[in-house]
Order: sequence, then C-alpha cells, then structure tokens
Amino acid sequence: MSTGESTSDITEGTYRALCKHGYADVTMEDIAAETDKSKSALHYHYDSKHDLLVTFFDDLLESFTERLDAVEGETAYDRLLDLIDTVLLPPDDDSPDRGFQTAILEMKAQGPYDEAFRQHLQAHDRTLRDHVEEHLAAGVENGEFRSDLDVEASADFLVTVFNGAQTRCVAVGRPIEETRETLRAHIDSMIVADGGGR
Amino acid sequence: MSTGESTSDITEGTYRALCKHGYADVTMEDIAAETDKSKSALHYHYDSKHDLLVTFFDDLLESFTERLDAVEGETAYDRLLDLIDTVLLPPDDDSPDRGFQTAILEMKAQGPYDEAFRQHLQAHDRTLRDHVEEHLAAGVENGEFRSDLDVEASADFLVTVFNGAQTRCVAVGRPIEETRETLRAHIDSMIVADGGGR
Repeated sequence: MSTGESTSDITEGTYRALCKHGYADVTMEDIAAETDKSKSALHYHYDSKHDLLVTFFDDLLESFTERLDAVEGETAYDRLLDLIDTVLLPPDDDSPDRGFQTAILEMKAQGPYDEAFRQHLQAHDRTLRDHVEEHLAAGVENGEFRSDLDVEASADFLVTVFNGAQTRCVAVGRPIEETRETLRAHIDSMIVADGGGR
Repeated sequence: MSTGESTSDITEGTYRALCKHGYADVTMEDIAAETDKSKSALHYHYDSKHDLLVTFFDDLLESFTERLDAVEGETAYDRLLDLIDTVLLPPDDDSPDRGFQTAILEMKAQGPYDEAFRQHLQAHDRTLRDHVEEHLAAGVENGEFRSDLDVEASADFLVTVFNGAQTRCVAVGRPIEETRETLRAHIDSMIVADGGGR
C-alpha cells in the first residue's frame, strides 16, 4: 500500500471517528478502530492525537481548497452560488453532516488556545475569503455585479454568514438550507447590478 | 448574605473561571477559587460541574434577555443598531471578551451532545430572533423599513450574522467591530425603506 493510500485511510478514519465521538472525546483508539491500522501503528506515524489532528486539518484544508477551485458556472453569479453550495453542503451527501460540523466547531473553539489549529483556521478563513472575492471581482469587472460594490467587505460579510450558518446548525439544529435561500436574496439585492435577481 | 448575593457571587466566579480556563477544562476548584466559597460549599449547592454550568446558563440567558429588553432608541432603526451593539459587544467593556466568547462557543459545540445546553441554546436563539423581529416589524409598521420586508427571514439572517461574527472572533481573532460596519450597510440597503441610509 502506498503512503498516499495509507494517509487517505487514516484521514477517512479520523473523519469518521470525529463524527462519532467529537473532538474533545475522540481517542487514538477510536481513530484506529475506524482504519485498518493498530493503535501502535498510528503512534508510529504520529507523536500524539494532537499531531494526528493537525495533519488531518492539513488534508482537510487541501481538499477544501480543491473543492473551492473546482467551483464552476457560466456567470460570476452562478459561480458564487456554486461556491455557497460547496461551503454549506458536504461533498458526498445531500444532508449536512452534523457530527463533522460539530467537530469543526469544537476545533474553532480551540483557536485561542492552540497555535497550530489557529494557523489552520486562519488559512481556511483567508482561502475562503479569497475565493469569494475572486468571483465578486469578476462579476464587478464584467458588469454582472454593482460597479460600486465593496468587494473586500462583501466577501468578508459572506464568510461571516457561512460561519453563522454552520454554528447555528450545530448549536440549535437550524437547517443550513434556510441560510442558502436568504443568502440568495441578499446577493440579488446587495450584489447584483441594478438589484436584478435571476 | 442573602441567597441572591450568594448566587450572583457564584455566577460571577463562574464567568471569570470560564474566561480563564475554558468550558472543557474548567473545574469546580477553579470556580471556587474565583468565589468566596469552598469547593465543598459549591458541591453542597450543585450536584456536579454540569449542574452548576446549566444554572449559570440560566442566569446568563436571563440577564441577556434583560439587556435585549433594555434596548432603546427613538426610531426602530436606532433600536436595531442598539440591539446589534448589545449582542456583539459585552456589557461592561468596550473590547469583546474573547475568553468568554470562547467558552460560549465551546458550549454551542455541546449542543448536539447535551440536552440541557441545547434547550438553553435554542431558547437564547429564539429570544434573540424574537427581539430582532419586534424591531423590524415596528419599522415596517411605521414606514421606516420596506413594506415588503420578510420580517421573519430578515431576523433569522441577522441572528446568523451575529453567530458568524462571534465564531470568527474566537476562531481566527477577527475583530467583531468590523461586522457592525458591514451589518449597518446591509440594514441600510436591505431593510431601510427606499434604501435610504441615515
């Protein structure tokens, strides 16, 4: 088995273990149970649970960036909506994976305490903002979006809304789909030129 | 000392202990150290740390509701902005208390696992939405806000933005003040009648 396959096995096992047990409670044993590795094999690869989770975070960020890069659509408007679906919906499932969203929220709450996590969270936040900005700037450039749009502030606002939708989904079980509808109204009124919705 | 004073001493001590240690790590000993009670006196009042934190959550929700009820301003627009300041800024301090915001985010991440916390989180979410709706409906009624405003969806969207601002403040250290500016632009364009800002 190549290192790549082994890594991907551990990544997927970690994903499943986080969904089941949450960030605070997950153990190396839980993760091993979700892979074809023994617990001691995991300890051979990683010094600690923290070390493994930081690597997991790395992989997660990389695959998230790939998904953002793969956003498509004929118009900037279509690409923006596709990005929203990419961020708010999980890759392989129509219903949001609340177990995983919860683990991510737990890790976000570690931001102030954990330097490695914080760097990943900041990189993730920046990558997301950059991608949103790119679609907004393209839409302003080709006349789809308002010429006076504050691209930077709008992108930042959208990223705030994404975070809020994810947090409320975990904390109070509010369906993430509802935010997509309101976001679309926001974009049609605030971002699209002449307030013309599609 | 009255029971009321004793409760308030414990509430304030719990607040300080959560700011210092976070939700996951805080102990009854940490909380006792921030009050004039011994650890055994705390155990006399509360069966467990969880029991104490649920009571703390109760008090928090009550004082938050009081602060929302105290929101004021001559116009619905002014009251809405005062509400935003109330939600996004802490009561006694100009700079957001990131330690406490972090503890709250940790508790939000317990929503799916902890029935008592979830009920409080849902009550908090509903109270906040209701208060926002009230100001939006008053503004529609008196002609300040758009007559075709979807009051329910707009209130829900604003609550999502509040959650996002709080989450990003904790996770990536983004200043909560920046959201206030963008929120104001959102309200001026999306909510105020004829898009007329103040």
